[in-house]
Amino acid sequence: MTVGPALRILVVAPDSPASADARPEAERQAERSRLLQGSLLENGCTIVAVLPADALPGERVAQLDPDLIVVDAESDARAALEHVVLATRDRRRPIVLFTDDGDVTHVSDAVAAGVCGYVIAGLAPGRIGAVLAVAMARFRHEQRLRRELADAQSELEERKVVERAKGVLMERQRLGEGEAYARLRRAAMDRGLRLRDVAQRILDVADLS
Amino acid sequence: MTVGPALRILVVAPDSPASADARPEAERQAERSRLLQGSLLENGCTIVAVLPADALPGERVAQLDPDLIVVDAESDARAALEHVVLATRDRRRPIVLFTDDGDVTHVSDAVAAGVCGYVIAGLAPGRIGAVLAVAMARFRHEQRLRRELADAQSELEERKVVERAKGVLMERQRLGEGEAYARLRRAAMDRGLRLRDVAQRILDVADLS
Repeated sequence: MTVGPALRILVVAPDSPASADARPEAERQAERSRLLQGSLLENGCTIVAVLPADALPGERVAQLDPDLIVVDAESDARAALEHVVLATRDRRRPIVLFTDDGDVTHVSDAVAAGVCGYVIAGLAPGRIGAVLAVAMARFRHEQRLRRELADAQSELEERKVVERAKGVLMERQRLGEGEAYARLRRAAMDRGLRLRDVAQRILDVADLS
Repeated sequence: MTVGPALRILVVAPDSPASADARPEAERQAERSRLLQGSLLENGCTIVAVLPADALPGERVAQLDPDLIVVDAESDARAALEHVVLATRDRRRPIVLFTDDGDVTHVSDAVAAGVCGYVIAGLAPGRIGAVLAVAMARFRHEQRLRRELADAQSELEERKVVERAKGVLMERQRLGEGEAYARLRRAAMDRGLRLRDVAQRILDVADLS
């Protein structure tokens, strides 16, 4: 199952061990990473980079501009995730976490931090396409909710600022409400500013005097 | 992996076929349902009821009051989901969908409708605990976002109504802004009403005259 035009994926995974490192955990993680990356490619995805979580500057992520970030963390998913969240702070991106870390106490934090796919101990290659599709849908859904929330909060904030500025004008210049509002609007138009910015400037100055 | 105190789960699955019905699809679905329910029980969940999607009145769901609804739909997940969404319209509940329906074009709708776990073609019994934990976390996260949005929208609505009512009072009774607001507050206190309700009544009457 593919998910439309090739998704550009940044894979976050521990560095492959040097071939001298034959510890079984290191080998298992390397094998795990190979499997996961193979499944992504088979599902028509493009892997834009594979980077370790602790070498993931935000600018690098912005430059790579992936559609989705796959975090491959056999254990210690929490630490890997913290790095990824930090690196995507300025621009949220869909994050899918594959982990064998069965400790579900971190799940709430991970979900709140923007993880939109959380696959524990289940790396079935045939399902990856579906997992990515669900994660993308969830990310868009949540972004829509967040945008609505931001819009409502911003409109509320604007109303409060404009109300207070109107109050200042009415009191200091003995204007009626309609007159005060008209004056605000005119000032905004004359200066090519938004109403809330003019209102904020009036409040800034009012605080000074 | 268990998910804390026993989750009370409503399973939505097609009716088990009569034993006379030996069609392979019916048998496969019945076997699938048994497996899924077995996994839920093994994970320490309580199954409060098993009902088919098309016999799921909202009152029955409210009465059962499950923590989570598991929808087991081998195919035609979309139709099953529509019934469940309708039945939980008055009170959202976490919904986890298990389906073999590989058509991911419905995924966006399902996520928007409140599906917080979407498992396609992957019924690994050992993973169910983790899937439910993630779904619960996601549901709570989304409810929090929705509540914030509802609060912001409601505050915005209140401000608009109060502003308009103040305007009516100022114009009709030739009051200053502060005076109009004081009058609104007094009326609300005297009548034991919320400010927005008094404001709304003033607007209702203003529209009449």
